[in-house]
Amino acid sequence: MATGAIVYLDANATTPVDPRVAEAMLAALTGLPGNPSSAHAAGRAARQAVEAARRNVMALVGAERPDEIVFTSGGSESNVAAIHAALAARPGRREVVTSSVEHASVRATLDRLVATDGLIVHRLPVDASGRLDLDAYRAALGPGTALVTLMSANNETGTLFPIADLVPAAHAAGALFHTDAVQAAGRLDPSIAATGVDMASLSAHKLHGPKGAGALYIRRGTPFRSLITGGGQERGRRAGTENVPAIVGFGVAARLARADDQMAGIARLRDRLETSITAALPGTRILGDREARLANTACLAFPGADAEMMLHRLDQLGIAASSGSACAVGTAAPSHVLLAMGLEHIAGSTIRFSLSRCNTDADIDRLLAVLPGIAREARILEIVA
Amino acid sequence: MATGAIVYLDANATTPVDPRVAEAMLAALTGLPGNPSSAHAAGRAARQAVEAARRNVMALVGAERPDEIVFTSGGSESNVAAIHAALAARPGRREVVTSSVEHASVRATLDRLVATDGLIVHRLPVDASGRLDLDAYRAALGPGTALVTLMSANNETGTLFPIADLVPAAHAAGALFHTDAVQAAGRLDPSIAATGVDMASLSAHKLHGPKGAGALYIRRGTPFRSLITGGGQERGRRAGTENVPAIVGFGVAARLARADDQMAGIARLRDRLETSITAALPGTRILGDREARLANTACLAFPGADAEMMLHRLDQLGIAASSGSACAVGTAAPSHVLLAMGLEHIAGSTIRFSLSRCNTDADIDRLLAVLPGIAREARILEIVA
Repeated sequence: MATGAIVYLDANATTPVDPRVAEAMLAALTGLPGNPSSAHAAGRAARQAVEAARRNVMALVGAERPDEIVFTSGGSESNVAAIHAALAARPGRREVVTSSVEHASVRATLDRLVATDGLIVHRLPVDASGRLDLDAYRAALGPGTALVTLMSANNETGTLFPIADLVPAAHAAGALFHTDAVQAAGRLDPSIAATGVDMASLSAHKLHGPKGAGALYIRRGTPFRSLITGGGQERGRRAGTENVPAIVGFGVAARLARADDQMAGIARLRDRLETSITAALPGTRILGDREARLANTACLAFPGADAEMMLHRLDQLGIAASSGSACAVGTAAPSHVLLAMGLEHIAGSTIRFSLSRCNTDADIDRLLAVLPGIAREARILEIVA
Repeated sequence: MATGAIVYLDANATTPVDPRVAEAMLAALTGLPGNPSSAHAAGRAARQAVEAARRNVMALVGAERPDEIVFTSGGSESNVAAIHAALAARPGRREVVTSSVEHASVRATLDRLVATDGLIVHRLPVDASGRLDLDAYRAALGPGTALVTLMSANNETGTLFPIADLVPAAHAAGALFHTDAVQAAGRLDPSIAATGVDMASLSAHKLHGPKGAGALYIRRGTPFRSLITGGGQERGRRAGTENVPAIVGFGVAARLARADDQMAGIARLRDRLETSITAALPGTRILGDREARLANTACLAFPGADAEMMLHRLDQLGIAASSGSACAVGTAAPSHVLLAMGLEHIAGSTIRFSLSRCNTDADIDRLLAVLPGIAREARILEIVA
């Protein structure tokens, strides 16, 4: 078992809650007992806290008005709600343009709608670096396109799609544009709103906020109807008593994500990791688009080694990383992202290290001290097996 | 403004978080950073905490197996998910039987489906005490009934529907039975599962747990499909990273709700409130079914007085109560529950006091010291206005 603190290198699965977030949430849990919809003092105090958090999330994405932010239970709910709302907003259109590397909540929602509603889905291919085929994108758009839904940054490789460049063609075709910005929010400039998207999904727990809080950015004027129907919360766009402590935590996390100039430091650690490992282990491949990639993500293939075996050893030594999306763990299937990139031959040998501002050089030191040996051992075991 | 602590008598809107719940949540926020779907140690620890909470929620409702509990973001999501799942499970049937006094998340979801899918909804009337018309119930069931959805306890009056007596006829008609048990869970015996329902909605924040956590009880063998589609969390029945701290808090709250023999004490306070007020203010009416009612709810009509004015005065004195569902606050419309009970003439004069185990005789003393005067003043102001 591990001795000492865990080296946590799985930030794209979830990030540790910032102590300042936890402090604010504890204060809300104990000091804001009211329901924000209640008219009395306890209700008003809870309402004020929710609206203060909303302003911080607005600033995170560059929203201009409070009603452009709808709080949800997380990124998956935001994705599902955006897709259903867009289809309702374009009732005469039955086609969706997306990519082959989207998050499970986008893929499964579209799969369901294909089966139940006869939706036509165009899944755009990507190249070996995870880049979108722009000709295929333009060719897929047409008068039947209700929605384009493309992620801002891939959770497995960190590869960025050029959202701002993609939006105009979708709008020209009369389609709405949604982006799953869960991995991008707080990690990229310029702001999400500046890309021109109509909707963007956010998740608090990817930026040191709490699980259970997310948001959907909905540009003003974008038609929208709720997925969770009921009371008038969130201006009728998301029913259910607001998760006040988590929303408060999301607000603090959003403020800290903007306040900290953190990505440069994270990029330095990530680059050090990649440089050192590729030097120590010739043949190691860095996956994803080296030109346009999240600064925190190192998706590394160790050809000839079994990634699950390596992850198990790392875990025993107190180092947490992953072989892909946490949502897909437990399934035997290889990563759909790597398959889409044509990398089936190394999909089983690939590990994602994803960093956050909580990581230090000492974490990278600990990883570098053991990873080359683990990789060599895993390769030998594959050969003799 | 109020001096001293608030007297909180709005437990059916939300309840204060128990300090033991907050303590457990803080421990989870800071000590369980992992994603429960991750395979490493941090992920496994989070998974174990979620499963421990699940066992406590199982016990709260009398579930027999872990897969009968699906964690959601709250009662509204649970209600919406149950309705959509039931309709998918009975594809040849297009009718739903419900009542005229359900929660907004049930009403609005059915309204949407009437508009978009041509669903036929039978809204059963209630009498002046909020009791269901059992003849109308049986008459509404038929070969087209996909689902019966009826609440266990009304949020405004506390009136109980005899769920266990209603389930067999629904099953005989081939329909699924769902109950919104948000107000009943932890406040009623026997267990929810023992009523024979196929699905039941729960909310943590009505029983001193956190906002942002709820569950759907799904009896084993009941067909179900997810509302929030995506990853494989909750055995494929609710996608999205689990809200670990809130689920942990829900588990503790569920355990405390069972452990405490709290309803007898709450009933004594509620009865004292009602007895004293009706003695001090002849003409005050106790609404709801006196024979079958939540022990914590006092729904009182003060004929001739304006309830909003009274609530404003109470709020100024640090006493929190409400004029109905928190979800409906801010709307000018009178309570749909009181209208359904044929009480439109006193709907504007009705206040709901809802208690929890946090209340004491001192709270009731403070209320009784001011409420009669406030009611008399409100009546005079109505007369002279």
